[in-house]
Order: sequence, then C-alpha cells, then structure tokens
Amino acid sequence: MHPLESSCETGARPEVSPATGSRVQHLGRDFRWQDVAAADYKQAAAHHRGVTRMGLIGDRGEATAFHVRYFEIAPGGHSSLEHHLHEHAVFVMRGKGQVQLGAETHELGFGDSVYVAPNEIHQFRNPFAEPFGFLCIVDAQRDRPILVAD
Amino acid sequence: MHPLESSCETGARPEVSPATGSRVQHLGRDFRWQDVAAADYKQAAAHHRGVTRMGLIGDRGEATAFHVRYFEIAPGGHSSLEHHLHEHAVFVMRGKGQVQLGAETHELGFGDSVYVAPNEIHQFRNPFAEPFGFLCIVDAQRDRPILVAD
Repeated sequence: MHPLESSCETGARPEVSPATGSRVQHLGRDFRWQDVAAADYKQAAAHHRGVTRMGLIGDRGEATAFHVRYFEIAPGGHSSLEHHLHEHAVFVMRGKGQVQLGAETHELGFGDSVYVAPNEIHQFRNPFAEPFGFLCIVDAQRDRPILVAD
Repeated sequence: MHPLESSCETGARPEVSPATGSRVQHLGRDFRWQDVAAADYKQAAAHHRGVTRMGLIGDRGEATAFHVRYFEIAPGGHSSLEHHLHEHAVFVMRGKGQVQLGAETHELGFGDSVYVAPNEIHQFRNPFAEPFGFLCIVDAQRDRPILVAD
C-alpha cells in the first residue's frame, strides 16, 4: 500500500517538516488534496458558473512571489470573461475544456499549457461531460480582474 | 480529430495570439510540449543523473514573477542534493518518484504537490521503472543552489 493511503483515508494532515514548513500534499480521491479546502471561485454572480478553487501553494504563509491555485469547472460551467494586467500560467490536470483568448477558442486536454498575456480577454469553459481541472499560477501581487460583458 | 493533432505532427509552432503573446502549448507525444526544447538540467556532474528540464513559462519574454519548468528524471536518476533560499512548488505530472526533505523521504505520485521551504535540503529521485516528471515553479529572481555532499 502506498504509505500515505492510510493517512488520506483518516483525514490526517499532510506530511510536514516542522522545522522548516516544507510539506507534501498528496492528491486524494476526486481530485482533492489533503488539508486543502475547496472554495468558491468568486462571489455568486451570473458571469460565472460551476467553478471551484483551491489555494495550493503561496497564500498559506509561504514567501513565494506567486500563488498556485487549482480550479475545477463542472460540466456546463465557465469562468468569468475578463481581462487584467497580471498573467496566467495554466496547466490542465483533469478532463478537457476550452479557453477563449481574445477572439479565438482553443481546445485543451491533459498537460496542455496556456499563457494568458497581460490584458488578454479570456475565459475557461467546460462544454464536456467530465470535470475540467487545471493549475493556474499568478503573481502574488496582482491587479483585480475587469469583467467583459458577454 | 483534435484540431491540434495535425499541427503537432507537422511540428508546427504553438497557437499564439500575435497581438498579445498569449499562447497555448499542447502536450504531445512522450511528454513533450510544442516548441519547447528539452535541455540539460545542469552541467554534467557526478551529483545528478538522468534529469532533463524544459522551460515552459516565465523565461521566454513573459513578465511573470515566477518561472514554470518541467523536470523529468529517468529511471535510476536523481537531482542534486542541495538547498537554497528560494522555495519550490512542485506538482507531479508523470510517473512516480521520491523527494527527500531534510532527513525524510516521501513517495510521490500523480498530482502530488511538494512545497520546499527556504534552506530545506532536498533531492528528487526516481527509483522506479518509468520516467518521473513534475512541474517546478520558482521565483524568477532567486539565489543559486548550494550543493550538499552525500
């Protein structure tokens, strides 16, 4: 048995080096990491649907100049159509989906990477039957998104 | 057929928005991204073995405060045993492997996340039969690693 399966199943905390704060967060069932809560993507609104977010690294006491988040979009869901000065680095981890970059839409599958440049109007969508999940890395210090009416 | 498969196979460049520089990099065969070359991890030396690196996002003209690299360790390989002030955010994408954090070694599989804290002595290893690949995100501005004799 994988040495962490037992602690996964008992809801134990991730493996942490107390002296330094290093940690391992194992991926468990249904794409959830140990000790990482799923949160709402944003406040409820009509411009997004079916998106959850998890803060994985960067906003939990680390000193990194970046934050790593995992977003998951349920079938039929989509993120806000928006733009901002800060850049996105995206890596698909689960399922498949679409990204709109400017006027174009691209299909995305496992491992595909997206770089969203400053001010690019963009939206992530899941028109498929399975959850669409991806890591999204952003600068820790960043501007707020500006919504685009669609 | 996936719309990008044909361009993958002809070695075409990734989908880029010329106006902004946004891009999609599809993952192709054998865990290689379009238009991303595999490079040596470091100069040849006895303290590492079988590691390749690919710079994915951050050191190709972007303005991000971070760099995203993909490292792959061949069976029997390992990274240097080292420490540094900058932090690592790691996500396993392919196969399985191990990470040493201080005096402890942890097993890693798909999707597992590692946060390596400042000054933590660490090493990634692949004692298994398949390639072990992971994303590693670091601050764009960072100190140089200090090797640990092992």
